[in-house]
Amino acid sequence: MIFDTIIIGAGPAGASAAIYAARAGLSVRWLDNRFIPGGQISDSSCVDNYPGLPGISGADLGEAMAKHAANFSMEPVREKVLKLAFNNEDKTWSVHTKKNDYQARTIIYAAGAAHRRLNIPGEEELSGSGVSYCASCDGAFFKGQDTVVIGGGNTACEDALFLTKLCRKVYLVHRRDELRADRILQELVKKTDNLEIIWNHIPEKIEGDTCVTGLGIKSTMPHAAEEQAARIIEASGVFIAVGMVPNSALLSGIASLDETGYVIAGEDCAASAPGLFAAGDVRTKPLRQIVTAVADGANAVTSVQKYLHETGNSAQNK
Amino acid sequence: MIFDTIIIGAGPAGASAAIYAARAGLSVRWLDNRFIPGGQISDSSCVDNYPGLPGISGADLGEAMAKHAANFSMEPVREKVLKLAFNNEDKTWSVHTKKNDYQARTIIYAAGAAHRRLNIPGEEELSGSGVSYCASCDGAFFKGQDTVVIGGGNTACEDALFLTKLCRKVYLVHRRDELRADRILQELVKKTDNLEIIWNHIPEKIEGDTCVTGLGIKSTMPHAAEEQAARIIEASGVFIAVGMVPNSALLSGIASLDETGYVIAGEDCAASAPGLFAAGDVRTKPLRQIVTAVADGANAVTSVQKYLHETGNSAQNK
Repeated sequence: MIFDTIIIGAGPAGASAAIYAARAGLSVRWLDNRFIPGGQISDSSCVDNYPGLPGISGADLGEAMAKHAANFSMEPVREKVLKLAFNNEDKTWSVHTKKNDYQARTIIYAAGAAHRRLNIPGEEELSGSGVSYCASCDGAFFKGQDTVVIGGGNTACEDALFLTKLCRKVYLVHRRDELRADRILQELVKKTDNLEIIWNHIPEKIEGDTCVTGLGIKSTMPHAAEEQAARIIEASGVFIAVGMVPNSALLSGIASLDETGYVIAGEDCAASAPGLFAAGDVRTKPLRQIVTAVADGANAVTSVQKYLHETGNSAQNK
Repeated sequence: MIFDTIIIGAGPAGASAAIYAARAGLSVRWLDNRFIPGGQISDSSCVDNYPGLPGISGADLGEAMAKHAANFSMEPVREKVLKLAFNNEDKTWSVHTKKNDYQARTIIYAAGAAHRRLNIPGEEELSGSGVSYCASCDGAFFKGQDTVVIGGGNTACEDALFLTKLCRKVYLVHRRDELRADRILQELVKKTDNLEIIWNHIPEKIEGDTCVTGLGIKSTMPHAAEEQAARIIEASGVFIAVGMVPNSALLSGIASLDETGYVIAGEDCAASAPGLFAAGDVRTKPLRQIVTAVADGANAVTSVQKYLHETGNSAQNK
């Protein structure tokens, strides 16, 4: 069978696409390689900017969206996509997973983004042994201990605040002298007693043999006093929150990507290949948020319908 | 005082903008001229495509969004905006309401859209006396009676289905031979017993002296049999669901509008005037939905922050 569309990814963009595609009467296969739905948001302890659901946990929001899709008999199939290819003869897409080969007229690519690595010594070796990219997932392991968060954006501030409730002391290491986070978060961070911001420093090395024992940092100021230029913060947990990289490797050579790997696509989600639509964090866009991801899911389905109609494959005409 | 931004409209776009603006630490005045929050969605009996909140009534969703904003001390002030003007000297906006004159560095214009009129005899005269633009608001007045819905999109189908549960019989009059609505709605409409679709007909006149007694319709087919060419459907309610017109009159001469009156603005919501951002249904966009409105609210605030920063008025620097 040839599906009208295959949705790749079960974060907010994929879930929204699934809901809209089901309501549009499209035949759909929905794929995701994770056990739990929600994509990145499932790592978030508290989401407070999805209008109508204040203060919900990311895991709960992800589940609510998946349940909503399930109302329309849409459930993600847990299969990792290994390869995508466009067949120029019959204008269909092949989607190869470990278990199956699927065929579809269009692809809604909503594979999201992943945590950016620092690529410093100790990071890979101690990952899972004190190095983490998710405070809400791993914070509880560090109860009563000292931890460090690296970064200056919303995620870093949220992670640091989350950890202050569990840890004895939390350090926030940031390479600049001001945070990028929302004002409300900046203020909370600055007035929290057991949270110390270390400005103008970058991480150099994660210390420890079998477990993290500290973080080596270096000043970014050209004339820092010697005792400030490089030092080690003792801590048993290091949380890295320095941004994301798009999960676009599957589209390399298939669609145009920008210099940082995001799929080039506008508000209508149309990528450079025929019938390929990029939705959510993986595409070039001014703002990566849950609200913009769910918008993309709806826009991508609308574009799919238009494409199917234009290529004479309208689901309405079957 | 000069506000960082004035948000006009309390539908999903305005509520999302209010939440994001509060979290960004902006000084905000939020204006809306309606008693209840939610904008157009407050008229919807059931919203089933806002991911995470399946099957919620529009009124409940509007209230949930308003309550969410109220958590951040954001509440819409009920004032009708009479005039907007940009002061070229100090690069601020003046917002005149009946009660107040406000000043702001930016405007987030989220005034939405309103129901399109048919402009046929009887429509204005009998409005509120059997002519309605909102089935979920007024449907209950027609319990056990016969009603007509005019239109072929999602709203028309939703209205017709809503009315079938209350009315003896519901006619759906559509000018074409296929519906534009989502497949799922089309199927429901077609299999509902007390719903009759009258294809290829347009409304000509709403009949009745003090109350609606029927709807005069005319065939759009060139060679319709005489008895089919023009006739009257007897009904006590006529529900008009033929689309929307943008509430952009305030921006006439201030910002570029397209030929149908939508404010020309892209995904970043930037309109053609400095510091003016159009969010939600009022702007040119591929798809007008709650999900795309909440995305706009967030994008507009991000653009406001960028604009304030670029013009040396960053809220972060105050």
